[in-house]
Amino acid sequence: MLAIVITIMVLELKVPHGDSFEVLQNLFPVFLSYILSFVYIAIYWNNHHHMIHTCKSVTGGILWANLHLLFWLSLVPFSTGWMGENHFTSVPTLLYGLNLLFAALAYFVLQRTIIHSQGKNSILKKAIGSDWKGRVSPLIYNAAIAASLWTPMVALLLYALLALIWIVPDQRIEKVYRQ
Amino acid sequence: MLAIVITIMVLELKVPHGDSFEVLQNLFPVFLSYILSFVYIAIYWNNHHHMIHTCKSVTGGILWANLHLLFWLSLVPFSTGWMGENHFTSVPTLLYGLNLLFAALAYFVLQRTIIHSQGKNSILKKAIGSDWKGRVSPLIYNAAIAASLWTPMVALLLYALLALIWIVPDQRIEKVYRQ
Amino acid sequence: MLAIVITIMVLELKVPHGDSFEVLQNLFPVFLSYILSFVYIAIYWNNHHHMIHTCKSVTGGILWANLHLLFWLSLVPFSTGWMGENHFTSVPTLLYGLNLLFAALAYFVLQRTIIHSQGKNSILKKAIGSDWKGRVSPLIYNAAIAASLWTPMVALLLYALLALIWIVPDQRIEKVYRQ
Amino acid sequence: MLAIVITIMVLELKVPHGDSFEVLQNLFPVFLSYILSFVYIAIYWNNHHHMIHTCKSVTGGILWANLHLLFWLSLVPFSTGWMGENHFTSVPTLLYGLNLLFAALAYFVLQRTIIHSQGKNSILKKAIGSDWKGRVSPLIYNAAIAASLWTPMVALLLYALLALIWIVPDQRIEKVYRQ
Repeated sequence: MLAIVITIMVLELKVPHGDSFEVLQNLFPVFLSYILSFVYIAIYWNNHHHMIHTCKSVTGGILWANLHLLFWLSLVPFSTGWMGENHFTSVPTLLYGLNLLFAALAYFVLQRTIIHSQGKNSILKKAIGSDWKGRVSPLIYNAAIAASLWTPMVALLLYALLALIWIVPDQRIEKVYRQ
Repeated sequence: MLAIVITIMVLELKVPHGDSFEVLQNLFPVFLSYILSFVYIAIYWNNHHHMIHTCKSVTGGILWANLHLLFWLSLVPFSTGWMGENHFTSVPTLLYGLNLLFAALAYFVLQRTIIHSQGKNSILKKAIGSDWKGRVSPLIYNAAIAASLWTPMVALLLYALLALIWIVPDQRIEKVYRQ
Repeated sequence: MLAIVITIMVLELKVPHGDSFEVLQNLFPVFLSYILSFVYIAIYWNNHHHMIHTCKSVTGGILWANLHLLFWLSLVPFSTGWMGENHFTSVPTLLYGLNLLFAALAYFVLQRTIIHSQGKNSILKKAIGSDWKGRVSPLIYNAAIAASLWTPMVALLLYALLALIWIVPDQRIEKVYRQ
Repeated sequence: MLAIVITIMVLELKVPHGDSFEVLQNLFPVFLSYILSFVYIAIYWNNHHHMIHTCKSVTGGILWANLHLLFWLSLVPFSTGWMGENHFTSVPTLLYGLNLLFAALAYFVLQRTIIHSQGKNSILKKAIGSDWKGRVSPLIYNAAIAASLWTPMVALLLYALLALIWIVPDQRIEKVYRQ
């Protein structure tokens, strides 16, 4: 489903009237927010894919925790479009952060539900280890959301920083998944 | 295909002009109807998935009963959008109920077609048992459709109630499917 | 891919302004054309699925014949929307027929390419037999296209007739596929 | 994901007002650009599919190189729509070329990443051989981009020429993949 979310997001990049470079420049903020969200959905896509593969049986709880995550991610095309079209003003930048924060929390809940279902020797628990990225992310989202009311540019930089943190692959995790 | 329906539904959440909280408040009814439909499609997605897995051979009848169900579910983004944009007035709320009712009937027909094809020892028949949820749903839909002409809010509460009934997992069914 | 075509087609059913039954009545032609195209894509989906399953190896020729078919089917949401929004006037009804005709020819070419690749004992050749439906269809499409310039209603009835011919399952074919 | 890109691209073919042949003629440039992009995405779809099948293990590097390619291809519906709606004027035709160029470079990077990961006896390396198509393409794209500022028609012919070069199947490659 994330393949669909990431693809329909381009529909928020509305084809503009006029054929000049200037017209294209006006689209630049929307394009920038498109890149940011593309990277975020891509990160979720990868991690989600790995995580689901550690599940041998799917309980009702995992299923609904998963759909809860997909709900928040399905809203990303909307909040991306709103932030881009308003050139990163305060409220849309705040809403974008809220959307990412709720997705992160939903991811955390899904992770816990899977670990709980796997019992003592949970592969997933071993794979994520201390999960420092998962623990730090909500703090940064909250800082970004607060910052967006004051200078949205700081919020954007924090969103970009978080994306960078998650892109860098975690050697230790890859090792566990490969076994 | 339900993964696509659930994802493109967000396209009815049109990015609004303006960047204030007020603008967002106007979108609230559309957002509410989005949540409701997301839950409904998610429920169908799960149950449909389980049901199809009990089929060992697919007859022409099952195939068309399945496409009939998908037809009604494919209309959900439209009826959701219409109900939300009109802030839950009578006719759109009624149409939404009709859409859900026809989907429920199509689901019932698909279920019967599969059970019939599996003969005497149908796994699906055993799994659904008395199917009280399936029997009660059309009654509630009809009550909600009637109520929508009078006070649409009652109809909405009934739609939400039905979603809740179906979300709560049926322990007995999961047991049968796992065997 | 046909799952995506059939699902995004609903986006041509634009949510109308106003919340009355009258507003809904104006949408009726678009809805009717939606049903017709839904059935057509569903028929292609089924038959295409069966046909591809007879292929053990995919040559470059089969691949491009397949993409050629998908090209014409990908245009169906457009021609459906145009015909519906113009309430079945001549030119859009003609274009709709042309679209279906080209899809039918592309299907025929794909069928021939697969049969040719399977050599003497082609399963597909055995399965389609005399292929009277495939032979009759282009004639009916041509009649419908001609009729659309004169009375589009006749063209529509012919499109519906053809859909009916293809929905009725072919007992003999199912037997061959099951072996 | 390319199946979704190729399908939603038809949404840029907006259903026009009016039901005459003239109205359709105005859509001709958009239709032409649709055909061109359909062919391009189809070529990528095929080649990408073959390439991914040579991977036995997916490293983090391959994954992100792949997402980088998908990013540029996901923008094709936008640049196609802009070029078509402006009837192939200079800037949109240039942007379209840039989009294709970046996709080609991303494809090249992905190819190199996979070959590198496969070590000495890389199947992919053997399959692409001298890769003259891959080497010539960026040159033609650059020529087309330069030409688009002067006479966009030349750029279009070059885009079409490149598509033709890639459609013609490479006998030698198919042989290697089949082994």
